[in-house]
Amino acid sequence: MRTGIWLIGARGSVAVTSIVGAAALRARLVAPTGCVTELPQLRGPALPGWSELVFGGHDIVTTPVLKKADALAAAGVLPGRLVVALADELAAVEQELRPLPAGDTQAATARRISADLRGFRDRNALDRVVVVNVSTTEPAAAPHPAHAGLAELTAALAGPAPVLPPSALAAYAAFTAGCSFIDFTPSTGARLPALAELARARAVPYAGNDGKTGETLVKSVLAPMFALRNLRVRSWSGLNLLGGGDGANLADPAANAAKVSSKQRVLGDALGYQPEGTSRIDYVAEIGDFKTAWDLITFEGFLGTGMRMEFSWHGCDSALAAPLVLDLARLTAAAHRAGRSGPLAELGFFFKDPLGDGPSALAEQWATLAAFTAGLAS
Amino acid sequence: MRTGIWLIGARGSVAVTSIVGAAALRARLVAPTGCVTELPQLRGPALPGWSELVFGGHDIVTTPVLKKADALAAAGVLPGRLVVALADELAAVEQELRPLPAGDTQAATARRISADLRGFRDRNALDRVVVVNVSTTEPAAAPHPAHAGLAELTAALAGPAPVLPPSALAAYAAFTAGCSFIDFTPSTGARLPALAELARARAVPYAGNDGKTGETLVKSVLAPMFALRNLRVRSWSGLNLLGGGDGANLADPAANAAKVSSKQRVLGDALGYQPEGTSRIDYVAEIGDFKTAWDLITFEGFLGTGMRMEFSWHGCDSALAAPLVLDLARLTAAAHRAGRSGPLAELGFFFKDPLGDGPSALAEQWATLAAFTAGLAS
Amino acid sequence: MRTGIWLIGARGSVAVTSIVGAAALRARLVAPTGCVTELPQLRGPALPGWSELVFGGHDIVTTPVLKKADALAAAGVLPGRLVVALADELAAVEQELRPLPAGDTQAATARRISADLRGFRDRNALDRVVVVNVSTTEPAAAPHPAHAGLAELTAALAGPAPVLPPSALAAYAAFTAGCSFIDFTPSTGARLPALAELARARAVPYAGNDGKTGETLVKSVLAPMFALRNLRVRSWSGLNLLGGGDGANLADPAANAAKVSSKQRVLGDALGYQPEGTSRIDYVAEIGDFKTAWDLITFEGFLGTGMRMEFSWHGCDSALAAPLVLDLARLTAAAHRAGRSGPLAELGFFFKDPLGDGPSALAEQWATLAAFTAGLAS
Amino acid sequence: MRTGIWLIGARGSVAVTSIVGAAALRARLVAPTGCVTELPQLRGPALPGWSELVFGGHDIVTTPVLKKADALAAAGVLPGRLVVALADELAAVEQELRPLPAGDTQAATARRISADLRGFRDRNALDRVVVVNVSTTEPAAAPHPAHAGLAELTAALAGPAPVLPPSALAAYAAFTAGCSFIDFTPSTGARLPALAELARARAVPYAGNDGKTGETLVKSVLAPMFALRNLRVRSWSGLNLLGGGDGANLADPAANAAKVSSKQRVLGDALGYQPEGTSRIDYVAEIGDFKTAWDLITFEGFLGTGMRMEFSWHGCDSALAAPLVLDLARLTAAAHRAGRSGPLAELGFFFKDPLGDGPSALAEQWATLAAFTAGLAS
Repeated sequence: MRTGIWLIGARGSVAVTSIVGAAALRARLVAPTGCVTELPQLRGPALPGWSELVFGGHDIVTTPVLKKADALAAAGVLPGRLVVALADELAAVEQELRPLPAGDTQAATARRISADLRGFRDRNALDRVVVVNVSTTEPAAAPHPAHAGLAELTAALAGPAPVLPPSALAAYAAFTAGCSFIDFTPSTGARLPALAELARARAVPYAGNDGKTGETLVKSVLAPMFALRNLRVRSWSGLNLLGGGDGANLADPAANAAKVSSKQRVLGDALGYQPEGTSRIDYVAEIGDFKTAWDLITFEGFLGTGMRMEFSWHGCDSALAAPLVLDLARLTAAAHRAGRSGPLAELGFFFKDPLGDGPSALAEQWATLAAFTAGLAS
Repeated sequence: MRTGIWLIGARGSVAVTSIVGAAALRARLVAPTGCVTELPQLRGPALPGWSELVFGGHDIVTTPVLKKADALAAAGVLPGRLVVALADELAAVEQELRPLPAGDTQAATARRISADLRGFRDRNALDRVVVVNVSTTEPAAAPHPAHAGLAELTAALAGPAPVLPPSALAAYAAFTAGCSFIDFTPSTGARLPALAELARARAVPYAGNDGKTGETLVKSVLAPMFALRNLRVRSWSGLNLLGGGDGANLADPAANAAKVSSKQRVLGDALGYQPEGTSRIDYVAEIGDFKTAWDLITFEGFLGTGMRMEFSWHGCDSALAAPLVLDLARLTAAAHRAGRSGPLAELGFFFKDPLGDGPSALAEQWATLAAFTAGLAS
Repeated sequence: MRTGIWLIGARGSVAVTSIVGAAALRARLVAPTGCVTELPQLRGPALPGWSELVFGGHDIVTTPVLKKADALAAAGVLPGRLVVALADELAAVEQELRPLPAGDTQAATARRISADLRGFRDRNALDRVVVVNVSTTEPAAAPHPAHAGLAELTAALAGPAPVLPPSALAAYAAFTAGCSFIDFTPSTGARLPALAELARARAVPYAGNDGKTGETLVKSVLAPMFALRNLRVRSWSGLNLLGGGDGANLADPAANAAKVSSKQRVLGDALGYQPEGTSRIDYVAEIGDFKTAWDLITFEGFLGTGMRMEFSWHGCDSALAAPLVLDLARLTAAAHRAGRSGPLAELGFFFKDPLGDGPSALAEQWATLAAFTAGLAS
Repeated sequence: MRTGIWLIGARGSVAVTSIVGAAALRARLVAPTGCVTELPQLRGPALPGWSELVFGGHDIVTTPVLKKADALAAAGVLPGRLVVALADELAAVEQELRPLPAGDTQAATARRISADLRGFRDRNALDRVVVVNVSTTEPAAAPHPAHAGLAELTAALAGPAPVLPPSALAAYAAFTAGCSFIDFTPSTGARLPALAELARARAVPYAGNDGKTGETLVKSVLAPMFALRNLRVRSWSGLNLLGGGDGANLADPAANAAKVSSKQRVLGDALGYQPEGTSRIDYVAEIGDFKTAWDLITFEGFLGTGMRMEFSWHGCDSALAAPLVLDLARLTAAAHRAGRSGPLAELGFFFKDPLGDGPSALAEQWATLAAFTAGLAS
């Protein structure tokens, strides 16, 4: 099952860490730490193997993959020895990277994206291709009447004015080319009725949104803990300090708002009420890819006694995201092969803001995922 | 279903908070925050109601319940207004408290304890009685050949030398009197083959050990989180600072050792390996009942990248423990009525060091508990 | 030396804690914990004694002092036993509280304020009166040409349009009445050239701004530590979570901006450069008066090695502020008696944003304060 | 002023970081971050320049300096590029390292150590040599009557039984050879009456003990902060987690005790009373050279209100210690030249457990140090 992974934002930190990591796993240079699909409960022949993955992608920047990998090694995100050992593999991926196309209309742009996807698939004799959006977060998209249905959307895309944000246009092009799609960011991606219609029509699955890599991951186990113990959370406040490309982007209040909102959603879902407090994001260039989040939770126990908990999370975002990107690509490709189409609500385990209305507690999400994976294997 | 709750250590902080809380719940002065058996998934007619609970107990100290309740109110553990409003109820409980008996032999002591339990049951026309050990932690008990079987134990108890630690003698007396038994402490309690034999013979159930009220509760959700994400925990170190009676007792290295060991067990169970690091307990009188625990977790992600997490937990031990004592008493009484006997392994949700070999992840323990409770109702 | 303390915002948390505390000190019911002027290095006969302090004040709210004191006791800010024991004293202070006057012009309003101050002084046979602003933080004031000189200001105040923010009008009225003035808030207060001119003309001293009670206090010792060790601070980011009246007010972005700016100033002063990062303030009603601040400091050591430090501060703002209010009133009154007028730059120890260009490191501020106090005694 | 720095423990992390750092400073490859003697207030011609420092030393291990430097680079303690650029300089230092000598008696051992020191001085035409103990911490030394006076000591050293712990024997040999001595560890070093007598007799100065690199540094500014604000510290508890060579050594309870005691001393000194609580050290191999310390401080404010502060310090011990080793060597050499002999109490700024009875607050220690340094220049 030769599987292509086409990365939107292919020269960014998460993408390059994914590329280096997949090559290192294929070469058996590292253990699959952080890869959920390598746990005994999920591992199996239904998923494409490490040696069956082929990488390509789009980006608007032009930094060579090797140079980016060196920079990540210098920042401590990945070991320099891997970059040296895998230089040939990275050069091969470089050949499959393209500048993000632009046409006179969004329809024309989408055609070019689809053409790149088909070319990648044909050139590499791939059974199927998964498109993964790992580009920086977009501002929340303006609503448009053409989002409501595929016919309207098709007509509008041919016009001169942009109708879709870039992430949604990528999903549109992916579906058109018969590719599945994963949005690892909080951007719009495939979350429009018109795109859901298209995915069903082309019989391709999609997944998203917003990979759950740090503070929200912790929330998704702590909030259920308070709920199961019938402790009342009074307030939950957080501050996320991060540098790197995504950090700079999130300094833009519009993008920030999208992210912050998906970060608190888990609390209301798990607790059944929304506690006071907000989760902030601040850009601190010097912190780089090693994000620090701090949360304060105040809660009430028996007879109204007030108590509190704090946690600090010092995580490397790319090192947390990259294995999940590989997991999601393997799972989505397998679901595609198994005939699944439309939203894969069973993948909520991986996301801050999952498609569908599945559980928000991590343990329940895990059970759902395990059942889903078992189903693919049968 | 009139149910007696006989507290060993009835004048301590946990016991008095339980007594005040149950009275406040019966009088509808407070919401059942912290009571797991009041969650929609567990609540039901199989459990004794708040108005069906009657309290009694043993203690070696003589501080009146009302005085202790005032002290707890002054320390911020419970609201002073409740103590004022419930003074009559507390006075009634006072009538059912007894000094811990002592006989010439442990057999004689056990007979007196059993007699107190039977008297309590008869005087109050109780359907059944649950004995709950909430006294301070004992040093680890010395092994003794008579622990292996009931016949040997019965013989040995009649001799002049002590054979059982106090918690185990309490379990012996409870079982003999046809009462169920819960050990909320890390002491020996019912965990001896001879006592398991006795419980089966008398058809009474028992539960334990060591209520999961703070740091270990958090561990039981965070450790599975790392496991489910295939992140490798390199070290997990903790420091618990606590005052109060239990804190002073745990300054004794022997008692400390028992507690510390049960605090790290959850890690090995949930992760499948034992990470480096220990969990320490220090006595700081001034901190009183508001325990502070700090944990540092270092872990490894994709491609070996090192990351870390810290948390601080500032919890009021009595306010966390008391509702669980009430939950456990209700569940154990209902299990007794339903004909269950021997160890209740399904109650692992409540304990640091559960009986049986059930799951250590909180979410799985919850599923087990919910199924158990549903079974009681049918 | 009978000294009046006239509080602007006399029914707020800080004011009432100051009033209760001074009465408790006079009655010898408590130790002077938190009172800097009771340290051996500062204590002395130059300062008015606890029994020589008389309280009065203005407020726009009407909650009785006793009721506010009860609320503070319920919230754990001060002990309920003091409120009971000092009820008569609080009732006496109640007699000296007045609604904040309003006239047709700001000149008229100022006259009424001055009249209240003179009445208070005469009624109580006071040697002098210190006016202390402890009202909630104002938005940053709009600049006005009349702020530049006393003649222009006097003319403008007689006009129909407001010229001064309330804190500055209070300083104007205080100076006019021959009273000294302390601004414990980040509001404008006496910091206008016209008011400096007036203070000199009336020979009264003033002090400010913005009492240093929590996170900034810690910064004023940690930032010098990094500087003295030649460690380079790369970023310093903070989040302040607070409820209470001041918290609600600071949720207003305009007031927030004034406060945040004075919170980072100490870093640039102490380090000689401004590190990356900001200090945020969020309102969390449930946290009440017990503020929590968290700061992350990333810094660089020998050979460029990156390191970090975090701290959490859980302080009760009123309990930290009230003794400083008393300290400042005693010191300012003594300075007034000693013939000092104009800005008291030597009191920088107490403030986030001190008048003058004194040192920002706490230890140096302390040395300055000790010398100043010794000078008053001679 | 050619100055030799002879390191006891010359192949350890602190020593090698010092050697690499001094070479990098001489080659102007790095800024002197972390070097206190490069601050404007201390810098000056009285101190030997970077190009005037020559390194040698003893060690019981044999790892080449270059190999150790590579390992430190791999662990993130220093940049690999420096090791590459300075390979020749490190090879030159390698020529001046010797195995720690051993003789039949301690007198014989001391003679050999002194001979190595003299050889180093002559070979390199050094004006003077500073011996610096950076070896791992010893267990607390057993008292011995011969410690009381030089005559008794000289006699006892000639006997077959060991009289001095290794650090004190090194000080003895240094003084005998006319070298000054610095103990950067909590070991005994020169702190014996007999050695004080010898230092005076040979007219050499010495300094110590136990470099203040992390948690204690923070304590030395926070404890005075509480004192200056008249806030009462109720408890101060800490946990230090560290790996590396010193960490492994401190897992030995005897060494641990010496260190822990010097870590709490600053509190009593700065506060005037000893608060409750202890400071623990735990060895966690995986943490390596990046130590994490956590402290909880509970304190009392006005009217008895309880508050708390926590901090976490994540520091690289070698990167913090090495510049101080260079600072101390420069200052001690300059003091030697200026004719100072005996204990240099003015260097308390650098130590957890300073010689003499100087101030323990960092700011006061700084003022003392600045005056001392100014005195050397005159």
